[in-house]
Amino acid sequence: MPELRYNVITREWVVIATERAKRPDQFIRTQARKPLLERDPKCPFCPGNEAMTPPATHVVPDTNSWRVRVTPNKFAALSYEGERRRFVQGIRRTVTGVGIHEVMVETPAHNKTTALLSDQEVELIIQTYLNRFKFASADPRIEQVTIFKNHGEQAGTSLEHPHSQMIAIPVITSQLRDRLSHALEHFDEFGECIFCRVLGQEVKERARLVMETEHFVAFIQFATLTPFSMLIMPRRHMACFVEMHDAEAVDLARILRRSLAKLYHGLADPDFNYAMRTAPSEYSGVKYYHWYVSIIPRLTRMAGFELGSGMFINVSLPEENAAFLRGVKVE
Amino acid sequence: MPELRYNVITREWVVIATERAKRPDQFIRTQARKPLLERDPKCPFCPGNEAMTPPATHVVPDTNSWRVRVTPNKFAALSYEGERRRFVQGIRRTVTGVGIHEVMVETPAHNKTTALLSDQEVELIIQTYLNRFKFASADPRIEQVTIFKNHGEQAGTSLEHPHSQMIAIPVITSQLRDRLSHALEHFDEFGECIFCRVLGQEVKERARLVMETEHFVAFIQFATLTPFSMLIMPRRHMACFVEMHDAEAVDLARILRRSLAKLYHGLADPDFNYAMRTAPSEYSGVKYYHWYVSIIPRLTRMAGFELGSGMFINVSLPEENAAFLRGVKVE
Repeated sequence: MPELRYNVITREWVVIATERAKRPDQFIRTQARKPLLERDPKCPFCPGNEAMTPPATHVVPDTNSWRVRVTPNKFAALSYEGERRRFVQGIRRTVTGVGIHEVMVETPAHNKTTALLSDQEVELIIQTYLNRFKFASADPRIEQVTIFKNHGEQAGTSLEHPHSQMIAIPVITSQLRDRLSHALEHFDEFGECIFCRVLGQEVKERARLVMETEHFVAFIQFATLTPFSMLIMPRRHMACFVEMHDAEAVDLARILRRSLAKLYHGLADPDFNYAMRTAPSEYSGVKYYHWYVSIIPRLTRMAGFELGSGMFINVSLPEENAAFLRGVKVE
Repeated sequence: MPELRYNVITREWVVIATERAKRPDQFIRTQARKPLLERDPKCPFCPGNEAMTPPATHVVPDTNSWRVRVTPNKFAALSYEGERRRFVQGIRRTVTGVGIHEVMVETPAHNKTTALLSDQEVELIIQTYLNRFKFASADPRIEQVTIFKNHGEQAGTSLEHPHSQMIAIPVITSQLRDRLSHALEHFDEFGECIFCRVLGQEVKERARLVMETEHFVAFIQFATLTPFSMLIMPRRHMACFVEMHDAEAVDLARILRRSLAKLYHGLADPDFNYAMRTAPSEYSGVKYYHWYVSIIPRLTRMAGFELGSGMFINVSLPEENAAFLRGVKVE
């Protein structure tokens, strides 16, 4: 019998479709990736091609070159210049499309992916995220900052060179507003952070854990919407990503790389997205919200039912997938 | 300058990315579809192959055969048999996965699509939707019924033979619950149905209309999330799909077929989903909610930003796309 599970964080129901469920190894990528060169003369993110992108806004330097390089997105969704203005006319609400849209080139190597980088290289990426998050949050026009990565065509990227992006927007989305307010309701009613509660239960039950480090836990949620989606959650209660201590940032690099390496080796380099899901920086210190990294392998497609109802059908078993990933050995 | 627009129905912000916007004709499908036979001996939905599916639960008969045929989904996401039971344990909530998952084969012709059917054939499909919606709603285990269609691989279908599906679930999704409750808040504050208000404004402004019939209006929303997504909304206030009169059902077939034909001819048969977005049948008569059909061509992909923030970036202009579709002549 299939089971409906309720996600207490997102308030979404998901069908765990036991009868249609695929085994973990049925999600292994079968289509070969195009082999890539270490340097691609036509790639705007490769060293030597810096003139193909706008001037850098932040760089982690290397002898004569760089290790991480941040530039404004050449095809920015939002305009960096301009004032934030809001217009209210009857039922219409619009805001000028100002904001910050940056590309963070994660490594000079065109043919690498996070799973194949060193811990130290991923630390530089995390440090860059922190730097850019703080930069964007200091802009009085900005209400919400999203740092994310698209890997592979199904995940919506067209450029193979490893890169992340930041989009900082002049409004708060109702998705985040609703999650903040639901988390606050839970706190008011039960005197606890709902995320801490979920994390505590996952650590105790162990069935859905993928891996643990000193400061973080990677796990598949009880009511996860899609196959192999994972959260990486800090053990210490923190509402905002920028509350991390240095040792936690180092540890995050370690668990992020290893979690992605488990996907890379276990499922043959699937397309994926990840995003830092965090409260805005002015929420730092609030007791009811808790940031985390959401990793979403793009192994299935949203169809009419999901689009038309808001409910997902997960054709895999979270417990089986977690056991599968635990079994994938990574350095 | 890009513009952020607020969708007053879904409470979602969308970036209308003017600088990155594509022209309407840049969304025309370039990949040829595999030519299909009128009958495929291996297709479980073709006449003569009825034994490949479970026995029909509803049929629109034809001399010696059928015109529309409904069967339980052979790979149902939910179990028709069994009791609805809810389990609450700490923060865990689960419900037994009972429900109704049916396939509605829309036509005997393997190689047709809605745009190529006759108005009368589409009427039979709409009548079938009404029949199955009422059947599912009468089941005391059911809280929400979604009727939807997936056309093409990007829209999540694997079988080409034209078919729709119904999934009736034993809970209400928080997406629908939130929309009902937001619509009620609007009604309480302004004494009007927010959907009627939006429709009235679109009909007055005309810039985003796709087509109008006696009882329905097809339009692109002011703050539409993705290129060429359309709503078909009844002019008469109705909360639930089953409140339609016969003449309205006939007219819905007409505008649905023509709207899909505009996509078919204008964009070279794009992949799409559609879904009947409606309040549950027990909401029939409420003054604050309003059903509609949502048509979503699958021309772009959700990437890390959308998944990580809940905000969409629309790389097209709703007004331009509506004008483009108005210009596509259909019978």
